[in-house]
Amino acid sequence: MKIEVNGAVAATATIFVCTTCRRKREDMPDGFDLPGADLVQALGGEIERTGASGLTVTPVECLAVCKRPCTVALVGPGKWTYLVGDLETEAHTAEIISAALAFARSETGIVPWKERPQSFRRGVVARIPPLGFVSFPPEPPKPETT
Amino acid sequence: MKIEVNGAVAATATIFVCTTCRRKREDMPDGFDLPGADLVQALGGEIERTGASGLTVTPVECLAVCKRPCTVALVGPGKWTYLVGDLETEAHTAEIISAALAFARSETGIVPWKERPQSFRRGVVARIPPLGFVSFPPEPPKPETT
Repeated sequence: MKIEVNGAVAATATIFVCTTCRRKREDMPDGFDLPGADLVQALGGEIERTGASGLTVTPVECLAVCKRPCTVALVGPGKWTYLVGDLETEAHTAEIISAALAFARSETGIVPWKERPQSFRRGVVARIPPLGFVSFPPEPPKPETT
Repeated sequence: MKIEVNGAVAATATIFVCTTCRRKREDMPDGFDLPGADLVQALGGEIERTGASGLTVTPVECLAVCKRPCTVALVGPGKWTYLVGDLETEAHTAEIISAALAFARSETGIVPWKERPQSFRRGVVARIPPLGFVSFPPEPPKPETT
């Protein structure tokens, strides 16, 4: 899943966007809208406009968070996954792209707090380590004492 | 990351357990305890007791859910990740192991609803597709009409 460019591993990330989240909208006939599809379009447009590379935007039918539209997940090979909610297309499209680029460039997916946009500081729903993560490294072998 | 046993891919899953979640406990000096570490021990004991194979239990310092102790994540190669909260060691240890085994055996990580224990139906916090997931398969090539 790692992409090499000129011999170096390229920085990549996938932005999964939940397209099933219902947002309360009293002005709509059903009392809600589904803002995720618009966010997918806006993120694609922002990538095109800025020339951001290495990012994939993928709509997903239900991330099962439900109560915090829009919800997105940042996922990358060997990285922690970050799930972030309460995102709005108009206010946060550029921030999501810059956060995804920082995530892609980071080795572990853990971006320093001060480099995260406000929406990502406030909106974090969960984070999950990459498969194979070990919290405590095994005890190193004892030096031979002969 | 796939483990082969007698030529077949073995069913494996990792159970990440948040050990940082604080649970309200008015009888404790600080007003809370940290139940995750006990759950890690209990899951390990249950695996040993039942001989469940293919499961790895890994404590994690903070899954960033915080408000729904204990929280666990089920993760497997090429599978959807499931994040589940509101789990208690005494009530749910056996259910977590059986849910993890069903998750490990499933191809996608998506276990049929009726096969999920009550705690997993009620406690789902989020689900995230595997890297490389594509929501809509590309249009198949048109048949030649010559």
